[in-house]
Amino acid sequence: MELFNYFRSSASYRVRIALALKGLPFDYRAVHLQKNEQTAESYAAVSAARLVPLLHDGDAWVHQSMAIIEYLDETHPEPPLLPAHPLDRARVRALAQDIACEIHPLNNLRVLRYLVQSMGVSEDDKNRWYRHWVETGLETVERQLVARPGRFCHGDTPTLADCLLVPQIFNAQRFDCRLDHVPQVMRVFEACMALDAFESTRPEKCPDAA
Amino acid sequence: MELFNYFRSSASYRVRIALALKGLPFDYRAVHLQKNEQTAESYAAVSAARLVPLLHDGDAWVHQSMAIIEYLDETHPEPPLLPAHPLDRARVRALAQDIACEIHPLNNLRVLRYLVQSMGVSEDDKNRWYRHWVETGLETVERQLVARPGRFCHGDTPTLADCLLVPQIFNAQRFDCRLDHVPQVMRVFEACMALDAFESTRPEKCPDAA
Repeated sequence: MELFNYFRSSASYRVRIALALKGLPFDYRAVHLQKNEQTAESYAAVSAARLVPLLHDGDAWVHQSMAIIEYLDETHPEPPLLPAHPLDRARVRALAQDIACEIHPLNNLRVLRYLVQSMGVSEDDKNRWYRHWVETGLETVERQLVARPGRFCHGDTPTLADCLLVPQIFNAQRFDCRLDHVPQVMRVFEACMALDAFESTRPEKCPDAA
Repeated sequence: MELFNYFRSSASYRVRIALALKGLPFDYRAVHLQKNEQTAESYAAVSAARLVPLLHDGDAWVHQSMAIIEYLDETHPEPPLLPAHPLDRARVRALAQDIACEIHPLNNLRVLRYLVQSMGVSEDDKNRWYRHWVETGLETVERQLVARPGRFCHGDTPTLADCLLVPQIFNAQRFDCRLDHVPQVMRVFEACMALDAFESTRPEKCPDAA
């Protein structure tokens, strides 16, 4: 398998974690977003979305991080990244989507660029915008973790939700977001970072981080 | 089942379509977002995310529209809203997430409010922002539909991806977005609207639309 990704892309980090949790080896293909390599003709030819991450598995090309992780879970079921019961699966997916649909899309690189370059928003206002969506979005996650506490987002083993949560916390720390109002989120984050699958795949450890 | 939703929320419309495709009856519970009813104490008590849609099924409360639709698909498998093969499932999920993670989050009511009320963005710039993400985001969907054309987003029966696409087109039309650059998207939209499940659940036909 090949994973087209960028060290600082949190959506890419989600998939690196999932691959590591499942013990699946892959070839790391760097796509440098700051240099706009995702719009290059050679990449656009294989990537309809012109985004990272993109998984190449045999003849298959799969994009969108949550879709990739569910694909990996269906094709390599052990260890499972979704629980067995439909209601538990729904809880894990909803937690993942609370991050992937409510926080991250507002703060990715092309959105921040558009705010500054096309809307004339100041750097200060851009940072305020960033922190607003992270801090309020994580409150939603915190409420759910408090209502049903576990070592990880759902129970005592990592799931899809943890693959999403950890990269979001990395982003939050990078932009100096407040995190003291989400103690259960941070307890889960620490539990994840104690595992090699989360630690060994962190952005600074990627080949293109230098 | 009860569905807490708002007639104009496109995430709510996604779930109404899925319920209709599966022929599942439900009690319509209106939550008026313009009046901020989603933050009322009684609603917050059952909704960790304080968003719509929210499905109440027996003892279960499920939020996030894609998580709800997958939950419905797992608990009421006929007709399926995801194909059988993992790679096809990944394609459908990625199409859905291209809308749910790349277009819609930038344009929902609370984000538009924040742009205007907290960032001081003008109405004109807000509308330009809206159209930018819809028009570029739908290009990604178009490329995928052209690469593998079908009557619907994936093959000849509606899937999760169509449940996401149709409400996004309603939003696009409401904000006068350009749509002539995505002809295959619009062919699929028309095919969907010829089905009662999409037509009978459209925003204007909801009890709270009056």
